[in-house]
Amino acid sequence: MTSDVKVPIEPAAFSLPVRVYIEDTDAGGVVYHANYLKYFERARSDWLDTLGVSQRTLLSENCQFVVVSCQLDFVRPALLNDQLTVALQVERLRAASIDFLQQALRNGELLCRAKIKVACIDALTKKPAKLPDVLMQHLQS
Amino acid sequence: MTSDVKVPIEPAAFSLPVRVYIEDTDAGGVVYHANYLKYFERARSDWLDTLGVSQRTLLSENCQFVVVSCQLDFVRPALLNDQLTVALQVERLRAASIDFLQQALRNGELLCRAKIKVACIDALTKKPAKLPDVLMQHLQS
Amino acid sequence: MTSDVKVPIEPAAFSLPVRVYIEDTDAGGVVYHANYLKYFERARSDWLDTLGVSQRTLLSENCQFVVVSCQLDFVRPALLNDQLTVALQVERLRAASIDFLQQALRNGELLCRAKIKVACIDALTKKPAKLPDVLMQHLQS
Amino acid sequence: MTSDVKVPIEPAAFSLPVRVYIEDTDAGGVVYHANYLKYFERARSDWLDTLGVSQRTLLSENCQFVVVSCQLDFVRPALLNDQLTVALQVERLRAASIDFLQQALRNGELLCRAKIKVACIDALTKKPAKLPDVLMQHLQS
Repeated sequence: MTSDVKVPIEPAAFSLPVRVYIEDTDAGGVVYHANYLKYFERARSDWLDTLGVSQRTLLSENCQFVVVSCQLDFVRPALLNDQLTVALQVERLRAASIDFLQQALRNGELLCRAKIKVACIDALTKKPAKLPDVLMQHLQS
Repeated sequence: MTSDVKVPIEPAAFSLPVRVYIEDTDAGGVVYHANYLKYFERARSDWLDTLGVSQRTLLSENCQFVVVSCQLDFVRPALLNDQLTVALQVERLRAASIDFLQQALRNGELLCRAKIKVACIDALTKKPAKLPDVLMQHLQS
Repeated sequence: MTSDVKVPIEPAAFSLPVRVYIEDTDAGGVVYHANYLKYFERARSDWLDTLGVSQRTLLSENCQFVVVSCQLDFVRPALLNDQLTVALQVERLRAASIDFLQQALRNGELLCRAKIKVACIDALTKKPAKLPDVLMQHLQS
Repeated sequence: MTSDVKVPIEPAAFSLPVRVYIEDTDAGGVVYHANYLKYFERARSDWLDTLGVSQRTLLSENCQFVVVSCQLDFVRPALLNDQLTVALQVERLRAASIDFLQQALRNGELLCRAKIKVACIDALTKKPAKLPDVLMQHLQS
């Protein structure tokens, strides 16, 4: 597609420190697997913020982000009170969606790796919508 | 208040079986304390259903239930794969709110007890609103 | 690998009814994407039960199941109070892991599809361990 | 009890900034009520850290903290992407438990207030245990 834009991949375009609390763990003594998806979304939210893109403003303009698909590899378990680094990079930018590569690391050691496709939809019609201009401008520059 | 209606307390006006899954537990090997609030709300939701009150219909009429306050006592821990009974009774019915007594039990043994006040608000103005008629009629009969 | 066992795929080897509660939804008005992983694990837990395999017994024998990887496709959103069917089938059985195909459906309509690899590890050493005999016997017969 | 120690209440003995993510919200568009208990525990965990008390060290010494009871008042709803301050102060210190006063605030405005009793138990016997010395020394000085 001509609307696709290749973004140069950087080792860590953005990263967020995340601490593991008891709420995140399960009876196996490790972070419950579904919670990595929460960590990854926290990083995407804060990354949008650093780009000056407010999710609440977007929602008021009926622009909603939805996760379309994801591939997760759980490499090593995170433990209670671990201090994690949750990293994000844009792998591919399309007109109406973004492919993210994300990682949860502990002291540089990979714990969980994900490929997550997020699409923009019109909050009313629920149909695919173009990514907001403010975001495209940031990502293509 | 004259709009208050005393409802006779019954041992278990409604109860819901709830199974403890790994998602509910924490690294202490027990159900994470905040999750009892989820169990209690599941019971209130299903109880509304048995009364023929649909939360989605209410939301479309801008009637929203919100938890105003709660008092929780954690008596004994629930464990992975426990089969719980989550019980509910109406303690007091007011024009715009309901006081619930709720319990989580395992084979009749009390694990957690709660007193939960739920109010009805107008979803748009966020101001207190009368409980829906359909609910009042059921509870006063 | 000679220890691999091909299991004939059946349309729905097991399914669990799951109701969507407020706890499952997010500000977008739909089920939060990470929560499908919870639904899928509930189905796997109950399926183990129907096979007579107790997770607590397994844990006491230091046999622990961990999710190794997953691929999720979010096709359509589930809404508050939806009644879902969460289905499961074994796609592939190995000596120390199982590949599951799982689906969340609403009135037969696919909402979310997943491929989830679950491995058995020794709870103490955290190293791969053979699947419990009781499970292998059930799945190969 | 002679082992009780009155701790002078300070306006905000400790506070933690907490951002509201989509995972925290529900279909009502606000933070799901049970999640304030998670916020409050995050603050208690980080507060223990600032005192040099590691929960993992405590667990390895079979000292486990459990929430015994709580009283929550939900005053105003928190919204997506709100930046909250989650405050904590010790209201009362006993030999084997602590009463906390906790608040979630947005720009100084009270959203949720809680009184939470946390007890120390022996992780093996599950019986009440004295608070760890390191904690008592910090709190009584």
